[in-house]
Amino acid sequence: MSSNLDPNQGGDEKKKTYHKQATGLALKTVQAHSSESSLKLYGSCFCPFVHRVWISLEHKQLEYEYVEVDVYRKPKLLLDINPRGLVPALRHGDWGSYESTVLMEYLEDLGGNVALLSKDPKVRAHSRLWSDHINRHIIPVFYRYLQAQEAKDQASFAKDLTEQIATLVSAAEKSGPFFLGEEMTFVDVQIAPWVIRLEKVLKPYRGWPEPEPGSRWEKWVRAIEGNEAVKNTTSDDQLYLDSYERYAENRPNTSQVREAINSGRGLP
Amino acid sequence: MSSNLDPNQGGDEKKKTYHKQATGLALKTVQAHSSESSLKLYGSCFCPFVHRVWISLEHKQLEYEYVEVDVYRKPKLLLDINPRGLVPALRHGDWGSYESTVLMEYLEDLGGNVALLSKDPKVRAHSRLWSDHINRHIIPVFYRYLQAQEAKDQASFAKDLTEQIATLVSAAEKSGPFFLGEEMTFVDVQIAPWVIRLEKVLKPYRGWPEPEPGSRWEKWVRAIEGNEAVKNTTSDDQLYLDSYERYAENRPNTSQVREAINSGRGLP
Repeated sequence: MSSNLDPNQGGDEKKKTYHKQATGLALKTVQAHSSESSLKLYGSCFCPFVHRVWISLEHKQLEYEYVEVDVYRKPKLLLDINPRGLVPALRHGDWGSYESTVLMEYLEDLGGNVALLSKDPKVRAHSRLWSDHINRHIIPVFYRYLQAQEAKDQASFAKDLTEQIATLVSAAEKSGPFFLGEEMTFVDVQIAPWVIRLEKVLKPYRGWPEPEPGSRWEKWVRAIEGNEAVKNTTSDDQLYLDSYERYAENRPNTSQVREAINSGRGLP
Repeated sequence: MSSNLDPNQGGDEKKKTYHKQATGLALKTVQAHSSESSLKLYGSCFCPFVHRVWISLEHKQLEYEYVEVDVYRKPKLLLDINPRGLVPALRHGDWGSYESTVLMEYLEDLGGNVALLSKDPKVRAHSRLWSDHINRHIIPVFYRYLQAQEAKDQASFAKDLTEQIATLVSAAEKSGPFFLGEEMTFVDVQIAPWVIRLEKVLKPYRGWPEPEPGSRWEKWVRAIEGNEAVKNTTSDDQLYLDSYERYAENRPNTSQVREAINSGRGLP
């Protein structure tokens, strides 16, 4: 029996593990993008870094194929792109690359009708500066907070996360609802998967509060949650609840992200 | 007397502190770029992140003004751009931004005759992917190694640094001498300041070895060291030896980089 369990379950079949297939609207999107295409996204349904690239592909209405990857059983085509086998990875013809921010820039560089980065160099720099803030000052704290087992540490990381989000919000255009105004752009997509997971993961596991009513942050969160590309790449609540139990319990063999956070290193 | 000492000297005037003015060829370049310009680089002469942007400006032969910043006595014009006062910061007219990689992308987006990023989206992605490797897997290890006080830790970080550099070299074009071939491009400039500091800082303080004769890495190092833009923004050896003593001794009040590395967090 135990040979059917994932390593992160530690031999206990009552422990939840990550899902291996999207559910809800995200499953419909997977099904609509299951045909062979020269542009392939290798992803895992629960992974927020994959979610960024997936939202970009949907928002840009590009033709692509979604390939679900079980991170413990990596397909050769993925390992050809990245020997470490990290998702997201993108294959375009006989070429491939990885790292979510690199892939989002690649999709921008391909052109097309829907751009997430402005043509104005100053606005591009502004978007990249605050994407960097998300990558280096928000995401690592999200994981530290979720993996922290002591109440004292959880309180400290909750405060840290609140402050880092406040810094980001202070850089946003005043009326919104998105970071640069009325349209969803690069910074919004960079943070969207974690906005979704504040509600679906940090709220049930750590009591993360709803955004303050009437605040600029609430307006932003609701705009992200209501965006079509975000909704169409988001699974039902249970998928996130199950898939993140291993992080919330800080169980061994969860992921390279978990190990990096525990060792005090940067993300893999 | 002690009021003239920098905080990182800990009241001991025999301790070396960072230099506040470039020397050698870099000083000549500062002097040639001391006239008022709408494009201003706020920098500190010893700082490798500044060095990246400075090399880019020189390589692109842009008109710019270099403004030396004492990181403990920050000018208002810098704090207007970034309240945290980190260098490098760039001011362009009444607009400004910061973070070395963001600023290098900005200079690319301005256009001009000399590009560091290809027009081909796939080559751009390749350059960004390996720049990300430098930022997340090489630079933090450089500082961990330099700040480590125990021989055991130093040996471990030296091995780690060697491996991360080898991974980067394995992704480089085979004949070189630069990352993508004959011309210096984005990845070369991203790593150039640390290549200079392997020789000028890690060698005297930690016994970092010369590149293996005949290796691809040696070829790359010599090409970077011999590049005109790199040479013209590099000071004499003593400046680096003095400025990094505080890191090599892991002294308090050295920098936000030191504190981040000591606390096991990502770079500021």
